[in-house]
Amino acid sequence: MMYDEVLNTMLPFLKQQYGNPSSLHKLGISSHNAIKKAKNMIASLINSRQDEIYITSGGTESNNTVIYGVASYNKNKNHIIVSSIEHDSILQPCCQLEKKGFEITYLKVDENGLINPKDVEKSINDRTCLVSIMFVNNEIGTIQPIHKISDICSKNNILFHSDCSQSAGKLCIDVKNSKLDMLTISSHKMNGPKGIGALYVRSGTKLSPLIVGGGQQNGFRSGTENVASIVGFGIACKLSKDRLLQNFIHFNKLQGYLHHEINKKITHVKLNGNATRRIPNNLNFSFFGINGEDLITKLDEYGIAVSTGSACKSNTKKASHVLKSMGLSYERINSSIRITIGVHNTMNEMKQTVLVLDKIIKELRSISPLKYKYNF
Amino acid sequence: MMYDEVLNTMLPFLKQQYGNPSSLHKLGISSHNAIKKAKNMIASLINSRQDEIYITSGGTESNNTVIYGVASYNKNKNHIIVSSIEHDSILQPCCQLEKKGFEITYLKVDENGLINPKDVEKSINDRTCLVSIMFVNNEIGTIQPIHKISDICSKNNILFHSDCSQSAGKLCIDVKNSKLDMLTISSHKMNGPKGIGALYVRSGTKLSPLIVGGGQQNGFRSGTENVASIVGFGIACKLSKDRLLQNFIHFNKLQGYLHHEINKKITHVKLNGNATRRIPNNLNFSFFGINGEDLITKLDEYGIAVSTGSACKSNTKKASHVLKSMGLSYERINSSIRITIGVHNTMNEMKQTVLVLDKIIKELRSISPLKYKYNF
Repeated sequence: MMYDEVLNTMLPFLKQQYGNPSSLHKLGISSHNAIKKAKNMIASLINSRQDEIYITSGGTESNNTVIYGVASYNKNKNHIIVSSIEHDSILQPCCQLEKKGFEITYLKVDENGLINPKDVEKSINDRTCLVSIMFVNNEIGTIQPIHKISDICSKNNILFHSDCSQSAGKLCIDVKNSKLDMLTISSHKMNGPKGIGALYVRSGTKLSPLIVGGGQQNGFRSGTENVASIVGFGIACKLSKDRLLQNFIHFNKLQGYLHHEINKKITHVKLNGNATRRIPNNLNFSFFGINGEDLITKLDEYGIAVSTGSACKSNTKKASHVLKSMGLSYERINSSIRITIGVHNTMNEMKQTVLVLDKIIKELRSISPLKYKYNF
Repeated sequence: MMYDEVLNTMLPFLKQQYGNPSSLHKLGISSHNAIKKAKNMIASLINSRQDEIYITSGGTESNNTVIYGVASYNKNKNHIIVSSIEHDSILQPCCQLEKKGFEITYLKVDENGLINPKDVEKSINDRTCLVSIMFVNNEIGTIQPIHKISDICSKNNILFHSDCSQSAGKLCIDVKNSKLDMLTISSHKMNGPKGIGALYVRSGTKLSPLIVGGGQQNGFRSGTENVASIVGFGIACKLSKDRLLQNFIHFNKLQGYLHHEINKKITHVKLNGNATRRIPNNLNFSFFGINGEDLITKLDEYGIAVSTGSACKSNTKKASHVLKSMGLSYERINSSIRITIGVHNTMNEMKQTVLVLDKIIKELRSISPLKYKYNF
């Protein structure tokens, strides 16, 4: 859900301030200036310069741009290292590149969903042009050791990208400190509008553009800029930065309560992903003996909206590649749901969620085919 | 400027109806249904099926998708035919493909900016995989004979795409009648929101996706859908269709007045592009002895917003490739401006524009270095 301030800032640009930011007239210049201001806010969230921020149509486009763009620029280096639990907007472009002769190393994660930085080091060879490891996983919320990984990349003179769609605005990110060359941000993951995102590209980093044409954004991303959404995205970044600590405390309190109460009230439940190295607004549980999708449908009847695995793929019926990579059993994957806490959620809603979960799980387990296996 | 109805329809999706359309819960399903309804409206504008409509981030992405997507799918056919006055979002991907061994035929236009369909026929060879000709040119408003061209393509079994960014919602387009395989639409060109567009792809047409990931839109265009903008785009299509005749008459009246009065009041002026085969909301004039950019700046002081050439490129100082292709002199190109009439413009504004133009042009010509050449 968007912050109220985001919509309020967008409205003038959806009404009278409709100028094309590339036009020379006042209306155009006003849009141009609004975009510059918004880019400054986005840059400030990650401590970059505003001219290192490129606007895209969202995290998916930013991630595609990195994989295809670096691959296309580096004709002689055809090896890329990613984790096996990256978002599909990283994995799918890698699959496409494999068809064109690229070698992709998909790093395994441990049973808690974590990458071992030593595996990155071991995988690097003289054809490696890029390492891309997400900061926080979208399904299980685990935080990868990207600082150690970026040190390794920097030492080996290899470009490092991190998909920060889940973490930007929730955890501190400082591109200067953490030696990141490229970084993906998604607006709607931090209460900004959908359909807009950014790619940070450290000044001097070489990659080819994905979308070409009119030459907007210094030729790196063509297309008339979506002024209203960019302005909204900027404000969302500013608010997320201003409220980083306040939101962190809020998430932590709600997550802590939910985690504790679910463990206390409900049996045969396991948290998926590392318990401590995790973003404070995500919990991914397996409730044994229950089908995750049935649970979602039942929770929805009570007005509680959760997901199985990735939201993008929740209607494709494919088992989560993230949980599979962690070596979890099919049964455990099948019984998993992902609970994401938003800034607008309240403690009362968490209390209600625990009560409803307890009730529904009892009902579903009473008719589960695994009833006798677990002695429900 | 957006239609009021567009913003009003978008607002609920910028507030409480924030569900991810891929999610299984009610909020998600509500977004999913809203998108389907909007796709139906977009489809209806061009008489296609809703499942032949793919949402993109705008005309630039749609055009890139066609050129790269068809090229990537057709490994054995490496020849593409386009006009030399296409938008850069067609021409730039063609340049990229040339570097990879593709052969591109850039068809010349006559002095009025028109393609000769016979030139298309003559250029086709057994390696041709695609012809892409815009319906209406963005700078000069001329209407290409796309029905004749589509007949030729259809007869030769070659895919035909038309960039209809300028024409959709302004001229009748029927993909069934006109045998179009692919067609680009841009939302903000018809009073919808910026940052959203569509690509019509006739069912059965084969091309590779440009942006891959979570598999949204049947895997053809990944990324969380920009629900609010899609819904706004849908309504803009519906209104444009409902008001097609009414808007056409409005444009025609205003354009006719402007054209007639400028010719009557101002000397040494030439219309660029065919006078009759032209969209009714575009006039591109060369006012000899004057620099187009100076004229824009002066008009802007009176609240009149016009462009030189393409809006995308108006701040790049490059001479229009469209006017160059028509064989116009550098002087004529340099003195050109493009006047686009919007649905919200009034006859009074046209009258005011003529008065201001007359006044400014007299002023500018009195200090023009070409003053004596033309006897101003």
